[in-house]
Amino acid sequence: MGQGDDGRRIYPEPPRRRSGDGERFDGWGFADSGFRILADGAVELSGNRYDLAGTKLPDLLPWVSRTIGVPLDPRDVNPSQYPPAIPAPRENAEFVAALRKFLADDAICCDAESRLRHGHGHTQQEIYAIKHGQLARVPDLVVHPNSVEQIEALVAAALRHGACLIPYGGGSNVTQALLCRSDEQRIIASVDLSRMNRIRWIDPENRMACIEAGAVGREIVASLAQHGFTMGHEPDSIEFSTLGGWIATHASGMKKNRYGNIEDLVLDVSAVTAAGVLARSGVSPRESIGVDLRRCLYGSEGNLGIITHATVKLFPLPEVQRYQSVVFRSFEDGFAFLYELERQATPPASVRLTDNLQFQFSRALKAAPVGLGRLKSRLEKLYVTRIRGLDPDEMVACTLLFEGSRAEVEAQESALFRIARKHGGLEAGAENGKRGYQLTFAIAYIRDFMMDHFLLGESFETSVAWSDALALCENVKRRIRAEHAARGLPGVPFISCRITQLYDTGVCIYFYFAYYYKGVDRPSEVFAEMEHAARDEVLRSGGSLSHHHGIGKLREGFLPEIMSGPLLEWGRQIKQAVDPQNVFGSANHGMGAGGPLR
Amino acid sequence: MGQGDDGRRIYPEPPRRRSGDGERFDGWGFADSGFRILADGAVELSGNRYDLAGTKLPDLLPWVSRTIGVPLDPRDVNPSQYPPAIPAPRENAEFVAALRKFLADDAICCDAESRLRHGHGHTQQEIYAIKHGQLARVPDLVVHPNSVEQIEALVAAALRHGACLIPYGGGSNVTQALLCRSDEQRIIASVDLSRMNRIRWIDPENRMACIEAGAVGREIVASLAQHGFTMGHEPDSIEFSTLGGWIATHASGMKKNRYGNIEDLVLDVSAVTAAGVLARSGVSPRESIGVDLRRCLYGSEGNLGIITHATVKLFPLPEVQRYQSVVFRSFEDGFAFLYELERQATPPASVRLTDNLQFQFSRALKAAPVGLGRLKSRLEKLYVTRIRGLDPDEMVACTLLFEGSRAEVEAQESALFRIARKHGGLEAGAENGKRGYQLTFAIAYIRDFMMDHFLLGESFETSVAWSDALALCENVKRRIRAEHAARGLPGVPFISCRITQLYDTGVCIYFYFAYYYKGVDRPSEVFAEMEHAARDEVLRSGGSLSHHHGIGKLREGFLPEIMSGPLLEWGRQIKQAVDPQNVFGSANHGMGAGGPLR
Repeated sequence: MGQGDDGRRIYPEPPRRRSGDGERFDGWGFADSGFRILADGAVELSGNRYDLAGTKLPDLLPWVSRTIGVPLDPRDVNPSQYPPAIPAPRENAEFVAALRKFLADDAICCDAESRLRHGHGHTQQEIYAIKHGQLARVPDLVVHPNSVEQIEALVAAALRHGACLIPYGGGSNVTQALLCRSDEQRIIASVDLSRMNRIRWIDPENRMACIEAGAVGREIVASLAQHGFTMGHEPDSIEFSTLGGWIATHASGMKKNRYGNIEDLVLDVSAVTAAGVLARSGVSPRESIGVDLRRCLYGSEGNLGIITHATVKLFPLPEVQRYQSVVFRSFEDGFAFLYELERQATPPASVRLTDNLQFQFSRALKAAPVGLGRLKSRLEKLYVTRIRGLDPDEMVACTLLFEGSRAEVEAQESALFRIARKHGGLEAGAENGKRGYQLTFAIAYIRDFMMDHFLLGESFETSVAWSDALALCENVKRRIRAEHAARGLPGVPFISCRITQLYDTGVCIYFYFAYYYKGVDRPSEVFAEMEHAARDEVLRSGGSLSHHHGIGKLREGFLPEIMSGPLLEWGRQIKQAVDPQNVFGSANHGMGAGGPLR
Repeated sequence: MGQGDDGRRIYPEPPRRRSGDGERFDGWGFADSGFRILADGAVELSGNRYDLAGTKLPDLLPWVSRTIGVPLDPRDVNPSQYPPAIPAPRENAEFVAALRKFLADDAICCDAESRLRHGHGHTQQEIYAIKHGQLARVPDLVVHPNSVEQIEALVAAALRHGACLIPYGGGSNVTQALLCRSDEQRIIASVDLSRMNRIRWIDPENRMACIEAGAVGREIVASLAQHGFTMGHEPDSIEFSTLGGWIATHASGMKKNRYGNIEDLVLDVSAVTAAGVLARSGVSPRESIGVDLRRCLYGSEGNLGIITHATVKLFPLPEVQRYQSVVFRSFEDGFAFLYELERQATPPASVRLTDNLQFQFSRALKAAPVGLGRLKSRLEKLYVTRIRGLDPDEMVACTLLFEGSRAEVEAQESALFRIARKHGGLEAGAENGKRGYQLTFAIAYIRDFMMDHFLLGESFETSVAWSDALALCENVKRRIRAEHAARGLPGVPFISCRITQLYDTGVCIYFYFAYYYKGVDRPSEVFAEMEHAARDEVLRSGGSLSHHHGIGKLREGFLPEIMSGPLLEWGRQIKQAVDPQNVFGSANHGMGAGGPLR
């Protein structure tokens, strides 16, 4: 299939990666972007990629210091020791010789930096380990197939020569899904899908596109937009994560109210497994064809095969995209607003409700206003706090993103503001709404920056029924504080949450947790203990084990608490049946850890 | 859990089956309803259950005669020979003795009528066989467990004593899913779920209900309505089919535009399998917890276990429910309207577009108008045909069902009529819309009635991309006519279709096919050959193997055409892994036919 248009399908050009889009190896994000402290103690995001970049943030460190009860000295740094030592690669000469028969030389990488990068995702434990410790095991080589046929040959070679394969998309997971088990005795090949990043075709009449699994979110967005379409799937990791990763993680996008989650968007998916290629002869709008075992690929996290491409639904680019925001007197008021919004109206593409701490955090990430802006800012603050009586230490913000036709957006907006006013909501403008969403992309950089200043931080999330949501938020915060206090750790923990998704039956809640670790022994392990306790509290409070991050190795220990024994046993039996050699040895969900299945 | 309300959950009373709701054994439906010919040659539906009942239909037989090109003589009948002989039951004394330890005497049935009824669904082949032939194999006994624990004991007994279990819901499938393989050597127990028909609880705040698998659609509707809710799931079989059957068949409801299909409605599902109870500790709005193998239960058609209960989403009863209809000059015009409706507006809960033959059929199912009604009917016809120029032999009807708040319905209705007018649509009133939907429930009775008058008929369906839909309709009709002609069969075949569901990427198409079989050797086999050819044409034309009916044994032979070898192999491997004794030996999809797996 060439490029162009045959009247029925469009064949887009392959994405051209922009020079300057290099990613950093020692943490999250693009190499050109990162927070740093200026001479005057203000913080600044480098580069010019994000709206926030280049803005002096004088309040950030003082606000964080006050919040965690520990004065942060800008000069007091725990410098990154990246790169760590990495273990020597295991050899399997027959396997590598077999690969060389169908892979070009530049498609087989054995350099340390690449091996290291393919051996971790972005949990705090992994980032802390590459900066201040090491990984016990990383892939022994990285391969870059460029076709389904090459992946088939790769799997055949792995089966023949006893290798272990771990698929790699964007490397942005936060579940330790890429972390290699230290007891894996076989050679581990990380299968990097980045050369399978094409949009194979767009079918404008039926609004579908067939996209290769290695296509990166931001490039999918750009390519489809050139033809007037969007997938509408925008996870917070969209800059780096891939279509294959979204399916393997069972991902959710922030605009799911309008477009759906990944399972709603994917119409057809193909994978190479130990048994061969799982594929179908066509794509249907919806069907009933017995047990469609390709459903096992959702959430498979590398355990069952390598997803190679998928056909997804498309939507026309919205006529209107509009940000908005509303502030409420309290989290409870905002939550009551959300419930009524979901029950009585059509919620906009995205709705998020932050708690007060996150509202304050967002303000601390603002430039100091100058000139007329300072006056305006003061007057606004005065109006909200003095005249309307909102307490800066209680109030919360709801950020909104509307997409659709002009008429749809106007109808949604007016219904929403009517409900918001019933709950004491005050309109807080488009700019604050937009800032809220854009901070999402900066926050992962802050995590890495803060780590250098003795703060370990991480997000975690859950989904829960409406009736249990407020209690869950409180229980988790209380538990974190109690765990922190019980360990006699310095200062107070940072624990904050926001509601990020609305469903008919409940919500998704997203937490940020951080603590000051200077002087703490084994700080990353201590963090993990407290995070584990928080997850325990989530489950006790009726929350799910994960809404969209997934399980990986980080949460596999909790599976017996949420699944009956026979359901777990089905997992083992099915893995054993379809991958008896455990060639897909990512060992997530506790599946087939440590070599061929017994 | 008692009946009542604990403040958070409502515990509805068990459904009370209305006396008079007895079902017939010799065909579709309630015992009190059926078509018959009156002395004057008019046809009438008996009973008073349906709006159509008691109405004299003078045009039906004459219209059918003209359509199939064969004069139907009301006195020329092929009388049903029901009940057929049924094979002697196989014995397994140890198994039955084990059952008697935990099942009451009245929970184990061995009578011939019950065994026969549990051994078939409603394909024409099965109904023809019970009326004019016989079934080679039926269940040897029927058991009626009333709890998950009894089903667990049942499965344990079957495993221990080598029995085969086939779950039974409403017996309304049209895929031969209940047909027993004649080479099954073990004792077959049909597991009738009718005593597990309770709504366990309703959670009004989170809009969820936990419902047992044997609950029948019409009773779910009635019970939920008492508490102000609906599931919104309304397959055409809703009078008889069950929640468990909907999941096992991967069903679709006619109002899916508003409420979704079964996979959108079920939040949690439990089943007893050979490995034990598949269950989860809680219900989440949405989650990412690795491979959720319970997804294998959708479309499982009895192959993997017995679905016992599920938690489903609820919706408040709509403020407004409004039928409407529009007529178009041609099927193509109506189809263009549907496409624009899906692209530009929010379609109502249900939209159906019939072709001209089905439009005529619907008119033939009307009473002869009398008095003023006759004048009105004539004037309407005159207006439509003479003044607006629609050709009665070309025009088609679109029936509509709106549900929602008054404002939603009004907005949907005005947008829809605006688009309809662009495509030459004429509003044809609420009454015609309502009639269209109600005929759905009568049409299955017509199939049985016509069989007695030498017409064999059946429906089949598919889903297909928008761009391929019109050609598919034409191709299938042409193929049926060619197959019919090639066999030198009497008259012409009846072949008609309607679009019954709209999706972003395509539609569901529902066909009716019938032919006159007097004097034809092996008429049911001949029908099956032609239906098989039609399915072949569906697949060639880009359609799916089934949109919502499923596979069963009727279409299993086509699976290799739509699934890659490894995908089929996964099915075999997984069945072997989780049910190595093939205790769930319904043998659908060609899985584990004929006894323990080899």
